[in-house]
Amino acid sequence: MSLKYLHTMLRVQDLDKTMAFFNLLGLREIRRRDDDGGRFSLIFMAAEGDEDCPVELTWNWDGDTGLPSDSRHFGHLAYRTDDIYALCQHLMDNGVTINRPPRDGNMAFVRSPDNVSVELLQNGDALPKAEPWASMENIGHW
Amino acid sequence: MSLKYLHTMLRVQDLDKTMAFFNLLGLREIRRRDDDGGRFSLIFMAAEGDEDCPVELTWNWDGDTGLPSDSRHFGHLAYRTDDIYALCQHLMDNGVTINRPPRDGNMAFVRSPDNVSVELLQNGDALPKAEPWASMENIGHW
Repeated sequence: MSLKYLHTMLRVQDLDKTMAFFNLLGLREIRRRDDDGGRFSLIFMAAEGDEDCPVELTWNWDGDTGLPSDSRHFGHLAYRTDDIYALCQHLMDNGVTINRPPRDGNMAFVRSPDNVSVELLQNGDALPKAEPWASMENIGHW
Repeated sequence: MSLKYLHTMLRVQDLDKTMAFFNLLGLREIRRRDDDGGRFSLIFMAAEGDEDCPVELTWNWDGDTGLPSDSRHFGHLAYRTDDIYALCQHLMDNGVTINRPPRDGNMAFVRSPDNVSVELLQNGDALPKAEPWASMENIGHW
């Protein structure tokens, strides 16, 4: 019985903010369904060439009060990048808090607008340690 | 700046129960790290041939009281299967509640031992409607 992973789905409060966040990471909308009857939208986003593993965003047009402000239960989404410093700089320049800076040139954590934890990992060997990252403190948790 | 999806991580309370659940679905352990110092284990599980999209289970040996009993914020993991009836029967025979039975021959939802929602989708066209599924009621939510 063959099994194939399809996607991870996240419920979001503010679709525009969330799509902007994933856009900053490098994901683009690859598929979308707006359901007038159910008053919800499903948006699938993935990086170019990575369409097999999208994240699905579920947005209820009339809000979703059941969403916790933080969810430790759900761990994180993880993405690999070719230049973790460039990506973190790009995120920071656009107002994203780097909760766990890539001090080691290898790993960082940020949060989506809904506080979903997103792990970033350097492709291949860790980059040489470099400022401002090497001496940057953690902010909050992730 | 290329980006590659790596995994979705879930924190679990009971590693044995959770691995048994994902085993029932058809996932196997593909990579594992037991950290004596940090007293945690990371277990990556994937279906055969689907190793690019694993789920990562994080298990803290001394428990994790921060886990909510339910997490609406996190949506679900989704898997495609070649025979949704056979898979649901297999799960049910092993004590898994089918929260949303595949009445339509296409879609079902179950929960992991930590109440993580897991969506199952039939590969290709929906199967012809069939009992006991067609008249099976929902149980709880997902």
